[in-house]
Amino acid sequence: MKLKFGGIFINYLFADRMEHIPRSFVREILKITEDPEMISFAGGLPNPRSFPVDEIAAAASKVLKAHGDKILQYSTTEGYTALREYIAKRYSQKGLEVKSEEILITNGSQQCLDLVGKIFVNKGDQILLERPTYLAAIQAFSLFEPCFKSVPLNGDGVDTEALEDIITKENVKLFYTVTNFQNPTGITYSEKKRKEVADILKGHDTVMMEDNPYGEIRFMGDDLLPIKSYLPGSLLFGSFSKIISPGMRMGWIVAPLEVMDKLITAKQASDLHSNYFTQRVVYQYLQNNNVERHIQQIRKLYKSQRDLMITMMKKYFPSEVKYTEPEGGMFLWVTLPENISSLKLFELSLKEKVAFVPGEAFYVNNPRINTLRLNFSNANEEQITEGIKRLGTAIEKLMNQKRQ
Amino acid sequence: MKLKFGGIFINYLFADRMEHIPRSFVREILKITEDPEMISFAGGLPNPRSFPVDEIAAAASKVLKAHGDKILQYSTTEGYTALREYIAKRYSQKGLEVKSEEILITNGSQQCLDLVGKIFVNKGDQILLERPTYLAAIQAFSLFEPCFKSVPLNGDGVDTEALEDIITKENVKLFYTVTNFQNPTGITYSEKKRKEVADILKGHDTVMMEDNPYGEIRFMGDDLLPIKSYLPGSLLFGSFSKIISPGMRMGWIVAPLEVMDKLITAKQASDLHSNYFTQRVVYQYLQNNNVERHIQQIRKLYKSQRDLMITMMKKYFPSEVKYTEPEGGMFLWVTLPENISSLKLFELSLKEKVAFVPGEAFYVNNPRINTLRLNFSNANEEQITEGIKRLGTAIEKLMNQKRQ
Repeated sequence: MKLKFGGIFINYLFADRMEHIPRSFVREILKITEDPEMISFAGGLPNPRSFPVDEIAAAASKVLKAHGDKILQYSTTEGYTALREYIAKRYSQKGLEVKSEEILITNGSQQCLDLVGKIFVNKGDQILLERPTYLAAIQAFSLFEPCFKSVPLNGDGVDTEALEDIITKENVKLFYTVTNFQNPTGITYSEKKRKEVADILKGHDTVMMEDNPYGEIRFMGDDLLPIKSYLPGSLLFGSFSKIISPGMRMGWIVAPLEVMDKLITAKQASDLHSNYFTQRVVYQYLQNNNVERHIQQIRKLYKSQRDLMITMMKKYFPSEVKYTEPEGGMFLWVTLPENISSLKLFELSLKEKVAFVPGEAFYVNNPRINTLRLNFSNANEEQITEGIKRLGTAIEKLMNQKRQ
Repeated sequence: MKLKFGGIFINYLFADRMEHIPRSFVREILKITEDPEMISFAGGLPNPRSFPVDEIAAAASKVLKAHGDKILQYSTTEGYTALREYIAKRYSQKGLEVKSEEILITNGSQQCLDLVGKIFVNKGDQILLERPTYLAAIQAFSLFEPCFKSVPLNGDGVDTEALEDIITKENVKLFYTVTNFQNPTGITYSEKKRKEVADILKGHDTVMMEDNPYGEIRFMGDDLLPIKSYLPGSLLFGSFSKIISPGMRMGWIVAPLEVMDKLITAKQASDLHSNYFTQRVVYQYLQNNNVERHIQQIRKLYKSQRDLMITMMKKYFPSEVKYTEPEGGMFLWVTLPENISSLKLFELSLKEKVAFVPGEAFYVNNPRINTLRLNFSNANEEQITEGIKRLGTAIEKLMNQKRQ
């Protein structure tokens, strides 16, 4: 890119990897949805009603008063030891044995993708994604110029027949999954599927990354063990974004010690360490409060929003339209009749002042153009009722156009 | 790396780039210096006495109370607009015109290195470094598998003859400089050197990165404009680490808008955005307090520590030992007689319970083995007096051994 400064040209020679990163459609949409009249199911925001503002203020005040000199100083790359111990203990209580040394604190779980990309991916290496998959995972991995493969998702998790076929025939280096209430589909892996996936991967050098940002927000059904409990060599990502605050960018990665060593090297090169002040505030918050009760409240809130959205969809959507009914998380996935494009619907629904994310963004190739993602965590009852009604009208209008 | 889990092997196939990253010697040393009896000039820590703990507590409390719902939420990749405006205005007041849109908030200025590496460096591209240079820059860039070149530093900045030679003959993509109180040497570019460097780079496609984490901590001489003011197409890194808190990991990069666009894409893929809670706390702190007075206090503190260290070096070091006398920052650079190894000195001085960083770590090739870095910001008067005395004794002992 050639630019002129004071009569002198400079030609910025950007790296090849920058060619491969898709623009974030979500990011573009968020600009549109700044219109205050717009009802948006497009973003992926937690409900701010779920933020423990006063408790965070108390924790910040306490920890600054007691340890201000320490918590504002540089700290270790691995993260605050007590916080890592807390996370390890919480896993162990849920049935997954994890040592605190196997945990690295990151800038949200998004950074886990970047760090794993750094330590594993050579240009051209194969990364296997679910189909559809988390958009920002595509972006994060794209920086490492991999070759993407994808494997379809069924209602209870990945299509294991397809998975086995790919794992056996190809040299897949990394397999990326979101096993609970996936973004974008809301799909959760059944216990059977988890065991099957572990069995398929055993004996192969494919490293599984299990991203679990929504796992705590289960409002129906039983908690399931992560695939890592059946496949100990795999990696597991976690986050405080959905239970405390996403703005604080506090996540972590669980990895075997030998992998951890490389992750620490990559993390140190990337930004030395995660915000230590915030690590201490979050830990203090966890010590002073009943976290389980707080999480229960979030679950209750999101369940009521999810239930309302599904009730309204039953009422206002044409019967040909299908959708997932997630047991947790923040998203559900709508499938329109085959020939109906969600991009066309998007244009139409923007005029009706309602926004969502067309499914295309979540595919690395051959997108299913008749799909779309709805977020139910960040809209109030009135917005959900009115927004789904408007969306239903727009879908009907589009289907009628097609029929004519 | 082959590992065994429950009888099943997995061979972790790490990326080639991981071969190229040097271990952080500083990190290794920090472990040694956990010994409470050790006097350490090894780290690069600000003095915790300089942290505005109470003021940060007041800012956190105020901003959580007023805007808790917003500041704990996801935010924009670019960073908090008001904070970016503050930074831009501060530059403008100092004589460098910067628009707030040209600023991206990062996780400390360390992340600037990672982001610039991401958007510019293909494998094998040439990166030009000062000789010696900031250790963690070597680490950050190494992830992108560049070819490193280096150019010597003189007392008033880079050797411009050597710079011109390299820039003309080679295809240098990036040139990395620390123009004020460089880490590790404490050297500052003179105004003349700044203009010369800009003139040499003009018309070439080499992009200059000017890292300036210590610029505010000038305790002698006059503030100088960054090279960017003579070379507008270049990049400039800044940080709140040395004037507010390093633990908060708040830095920024200044770049032309067209480069900014790529940086934002890379930042979003890396970790979505920097800690928004902390951005708001830092901004609130800046609004409520007299920052200039605070910075004056840090300068006064560090000057007294630097003066004491130099006084003690004059008193206790053999006259053959040379050292820089920096006008700011946190480090000075010692050059022992040619045949004296600072690694040998390190072994000897550890026995005397005093630590520093041997110069070797700061070179990408042909290290000057008779050099070492001393930090003066993070030790008290007693430690400086006693530590330099012990170090002087160790140097004499080593020189005497050599003479025998």
